[in-house]
Amino acid sequence: MAKEKMVTAITSMKEDFAQWYTDVVKKAELIDYSSIRGCMILRPNGYAIWENIRNELDRRFKATGVENVYMPMFIPESLLQKEKDHVEGFAPEVAWVTHGGGEKLQERMCVRPTSETLFCDLYSNIVQSYRDLPKLYNQWCSVVRWEKTTRPFLRSMEFLWQEGHTAHATAEEAEERTIQMLNVYADFCEQVLAIPMIKGKKTDKEKFAGAHSTYTIEALMHDGKALQSGTSHNFGDGFAQAFGIQYTDKENKLQYVHQTSWGMSTRIIGAVIMVHGDDSGLVLPPRIAPTQVMVIPIAQKKPGVLEKASELKERLSAVCRAGLDDSDKTPGWKFSEYEMRGIPVRVEIGPKDIEAGQCILARRDTGEKITVALDSIEDEVTRLLDTIQADMLARAAAHRDKHTYTAKSMEELGRIANETPGFIKAMWCGDEECENKIKEEYSVTSRCMPFEQEEIDDKCVCCGKKAKTMVYWGKAY
Amino acid sequence: MAKEKMVTAITSMKEDFAQWYTDVVKKAELIDYSSIRGCMILRPNGYAIWENIRNELDRRFKATGVENVYMPMFIPESLLQKEKDHVEGFAPEVAWVTHGGGEKLQERMCVRPTSETLFCDLYSNIVQSYRDLPKLYNQWCSVVRWEKTTRPFLRSMEFLWQEGHTAHATAEEAEERTIQMLNVYADFCEQVLAIPMIKGKKTDKEKFAGAHSTYTIEALMHDGKALQSGTSHNFGDGFAQAFGIQYTDKENKLQYVHQTSWGMSTRIIGAVIMVHGDDSGLVLPPRIAPTQVMVIPIAQKKPGVLEKASELKERLSAVCRAGLDDSDKTPGWKFSEYEMRGIPVRVEIGPKDIEAGQCILARRDTGEKITVALDSIEDEVTRLLDTIQADMLARAAAHRDKHTYTAKSMEELGRIANETPGFIKAMWCGDEECENKIKEEYSVTSRCMPFEQEEIDDKCVCCGKKAKTMVYWGKAY
Repeated sequence: MAKEKMVTAITSMKEDFAQWYTDVVKKAELIDYSSIRGCMILRPNGYAIWENIRNELDRRFKATGVENVYMPMFIPESLLQKEKDHVEGFAPEVAWVTHGGGEKLQERMCVRPTSETLFCDLYSNIVQSYRDLPKLYNQWCSVVRWEKTTRPFLRSMEFLWQEGHTAHATAEEAEERTIQMLNVYADFCEQVLAIPMIKGKKTDKEKFAGAHSTYTIEALMHDGKALQSGTSHNFGDGFAQAFGIQYTDKENKLQYVHQTSWGMSTRIIGAVIMVHGDDSGLVLPPRIAPTQVMVIPIAQKKPGVLEKASELKERLSAVCRAGLDDSDKTPGWKFSEYEMRGIPVRVEIGPKDIEAGQCILARRDTGEKITVALDSIEDEVTRLLDTIQADMLARAAAHRDKHTYTAKSMEELGRIANETPGFIKAMWCGDEECENKIKEEYSVTSRCMPFEQEEIDDKCVCCGKKAKTMVYWGKAY
Repeated sequence: MAKEKMVTAITSMKEDFAQWYTDVVKKAELIDYSSIRGCMILRPNGYAIWENIRNELDRRFKATGVENVYMPMFIPESLLQKEKDHVEGFAPEVAWVTHGGGEKLQERMCVRPTSETLFCDLYSNIVQSYRDLPKLYNQWCSVVRWEKTTRPFLRSMEFLWQEGHTAHATAEEAEERTIQMLNVYADFCEQVLAIPMIKGKKTDKEKFAGAHSTYTIEALMHDGKALQSGTSHNFGDGFAQAFGIQYTDKENKLQYVHQTSWGMSTRIIGAVIMVHGDDSGLVLPPRIAPTQVMVIPIAQKKPGVLEKASELKERLSAVCRAGLDDSDKTPGWKFSEYEMRGIPVRVEIGPKDIEAGQCILARRDTGEKITVALDSIEDEVTRLLDTIQADMLARAAAHRDKHTYTAKSMEELGRIANETPGFIKAMWCGDEECENKIKEEYSVTSRCMPFEQEEIDDKCVCCGKKAKTMVYWGKAY
């Protein structure tokens, strides 16, 4: 049967999680590989998810006063070099354009790996007075980072993202904006993607090249690995000093601006797959699903079935993103195809249902089937989509909590890291030596110093000296 | 006074049209120049126009079944070379990436100047059966073409655009899609941008590199020059043969697909500026204006004025994109600033207006001021925006018609080309020699062979031999 054939075509999660992931992205037709090493093609199913993410995030950004711009994709080498830490962080992984229009360039240009330097260059031209502040700019674009090993969505040479870049009169305002945007990301992930996030600050070792401080949201995948899902950086006035971005304040004194940047990328689609997916494929939270409900006629050659299915699709389109598959493929094939694609609700309607004035709703997340009256289908589906969204978040939170452990000693930390992947909460003295040692010995990295601190112990898990902060550790993508 | 100061800061159109254009794009803060030669920065005012264009076009594409994807920005040299005419057309103007991740690449890659080759590569992998057709893909992205001389929007090294690429089972279907998308562009320009278009076919000399036929929409700018505003290409099966894109038809025979591509870019913003703008700056058609109505309080320190202005803005926000400027700048400064930015309607409200239960609406396109009752402000503004939109299209059409001439001899053609710039309609024998001669002698190029043909004469304007078709000639951007 078609259905069995499709389902067995995916490796099971338990057998090989990495292969399961690759199977899902390919068979759900989210991506295809291209002729360029490490670059992926976003196919319609994948790009439509990104469009929904973009539209929803963009709306939330604009509600905080952010304006969109578009900056050039090239950065001259001299501009990239202006901020010392920044160039050290990015220069090794850029792609260089050396020739154009048939000639060798006088100065080579890199394809943007991120655009801090371009925004700084712009701000140094357009910011003069305190009246010009704040600048709250964002752009949607692609960036290029030369990666040795790549995986669809998680790490690719070119990826789509947004990068926000703001300039403020004061350090306080910049810090406030940094946290505000982190919260926008976390709220979006919880409410729309049904992924609960740990919010916190990166250690100095893990922060962004050139930042004073980096904040992050971290999610736990189904296999117990962590995924950094969005970051927000406070640059202080470091870039402003390097690029000479100054304004005259109300007392007519020259001041440096304080800056932030924050980004979220197509990587977050990897999180959606690895948090919610199962052995039948993708499972999409309703709020992000390009198609939320798919109507599938049963015995569609029987008189009246197609008409009723089409009528149902029209009615549902008024309350959600609904589709209808009236192709001549078997219902079994359609069932497994749309399960693979993660469509939240399937509506089955056949001659007997029509006679009884009902239809069947099948939940993608639980497999549960519910018989509902045709009369109230709009309400039933609306309510079911909300229920699925809430249940998916609750399940993801429960999974995360179940796989969050506490370690009070290196032995304990090591055992958990080796045996039961997940988040490990442990105290830390703040010394980079301990951070390095933990990474070397157990291959876990500090994910963040969470905003919600707990006092597990008063000693550093590694050196036993006085602890300063609790850290989430984990193996990460 | 602030107002005078702003207005005299733009060069007048008559004095120097090119300088007027540069002044407008800069002072309306649509763009800024960047550190990279020929690359422009789209600032919030400019990008917001592009967002509206994108959203509206995207909606129209999707209504015809088009799906969005994202392809890599790099093309390996060997892939670019697969179609002979195509590589000849584009290779001279590409940017080459030769190094990445600190190493020299084994094969250099160009930054996409257009993505036919990438789409063909994808289609050759994913199209097998007639059931896989048609493929109706589109992407929104930026492309790079190494230009010697650049001008904001009109010709820049990197620009934003969309490129649609479709694959069909039959030649007829491909031709139908080519024309369908040209009509989508033309309708969009007329209905949304208030720019009337001449639809037609390019001569072989002017068609796209690798296309069987290229269709175009051509608009007339205020200075009498033409602007190619969007193109739609029918590739026949030329690319399919070069890339081996084959499908098995219903009789199980292998067939080549037939392909199209079609694109519109940020260049169209240049058309909006040069068709509608005036000596006070930009004039935006209401349907594309990021802010359609700006409320400006008069004597705003007087009690009740700001409250009433704010209430007006809220009420108007329910029916249009409304803004309020309650900053401490003078009304005069605000008037000229929003005139510069092309906001279609200004609402003035002061103490006397409030007392009389009225306010003043000022049209950006005509300067006309209308006093209206506050009670019916939503209706008045909605109606006025529609009127402005219709009037702008009518004026643009009248200007275009007034500057469309007919030439029956080379002398006549030459005189018009030199003295009164505009479209010149003339008959043509179809011989490229005549086309070249007209270009060399009078610096006008064939814009298109319009769908709406007229029989001006039976002889070619150049050689006097039997004419095959009427051609629009013009100086072009």
